[in-house]
Amino acid sequence: MVTPELQKLEPKVHVGLIVVITGYGKGKTTSALGIVLRSVGHGLRVCVIQFMKGDIFAGEIEALKRLAPQVEHHLTGKGFCGIQGNPYPHAEHRENAQYAISLAKERMLSGLFDVLICDEINNALKLKLVDLDQVLDLIESKPPSLHLVLTGRDAHPEVLQRSNTVSEVREIKHAYREGIEPQKGIDF
Amino acid sequence: MVTPELQKLEPKVHVGLIVVITGYGKGKTTSALGIVLRSVGHGLRVCVIQFMKGDIFAGEIEALKRLAPQVEHHLTGKGFCGIQGNPYPHAEHRENAQYAISLAKERMLSGLFDVLICDEINNALKLKLVDLDQVLDLIESKPPSLHLVLTGRDAHPEVLQRSNTVSEVREIKHAYREGIEPQKGIDF
Repeated sequence: MVTPELQKLEPKVHVGLIVVITGYGKGKTTSALGIVLRSVGHGLRVCVIQFMKGDIFAGEIEALKRLAPQVEHHLTGKGFCGIQGNPYPHAEHRENAQYAISLAKERMLSGLFDVLICDEINNALKLKLVDLDQVLDLIESKPPSLHLVLTGRDAHPEVLQRSNTVSEVREIKHAYREGIEPQKGIDF
Repeated sequence: MVTPELQKLEPKVHVGLIVVITGYGKGKTTSALGIVLRSVGHGLRVCVIQFMKGDIFAGEIEALKRLAPQVEHHLTGKGFCGIQGNPYPHAEHRENAQYAISLAKERMLSGLFDVLICDEINNALKLKLVDLDQVLDLIESKPPSLHLVLTGRDAHPEVLQRSNTVSEVREIKHAYREGIEPQKGIDF
């Protein structure tokens, strides 16, 4: 089987996109991690800031290290605010998220990155850990050539309005409904 | 800001899942690539077989090389069958997809991998490049501990029925509708 030579696409105009990945299904952070991988293959420099996450080990923590220094990764949280078993008060989650959004703006404007991933920022906004004007300010301050990716359920309509590409991940089925615990590689 | 120690989750029972990522929105292959990255971080070995793709350079091609030998990657196609501008006849696409599915089964049963990604296999089935009984045979031959991930639009109901986790990615907005060309890192 002879396959043809790979064609290299080169967009005439480079546009830094605003991408939102929202919805209640599995595959939002996962999709953002795919964008990291794909970007790395194009030689782009990526900063990943995870809002709220930082209490549980996930595969990406080790894997993103293997892509350093092209990828920088920040865990800024203490787990999901308000879910069962999370012991931290709202004020403490908010303090962490406030740090995360100021870090996001600083890294975005540093000139060091082509892609900025703000993982779970939609969720952080919904939970009032960050404010709408802070997220809109981040979007409006975006350098034209930088791709900004915002993940998390319950994306705000004002954020969607300012975005170029929005995908909603819907849950059709999920293994946990069969009583299967989260599995390595797939769920974390 | 002091963050707590990372907790390591260890599922009591390891279950090899069947995961389907379907729908018409952006983020199916991307999500599968995120599963690759996450799996790598857990020390899992991953085989990625891309059906139909193999005509256009995409970021994952270079990035997956950086994760070798833990990740093995096969491009098996000549582009999307039947779309405008694709010059290859159906029979040729089918021959490639037939190679891909036999390779998928061989790699799945080799014992060398913990995760097998069959990218665009749903689409290949819909386009009759592979047959339903071949895909069901792949699913039914799956070693219990292996995660099998099937991506592509128009997933077959019989495939969904046999899956544990199914996400549908819906398009809410897409940059191309604004006339923006595919962008590196995000779209390929």
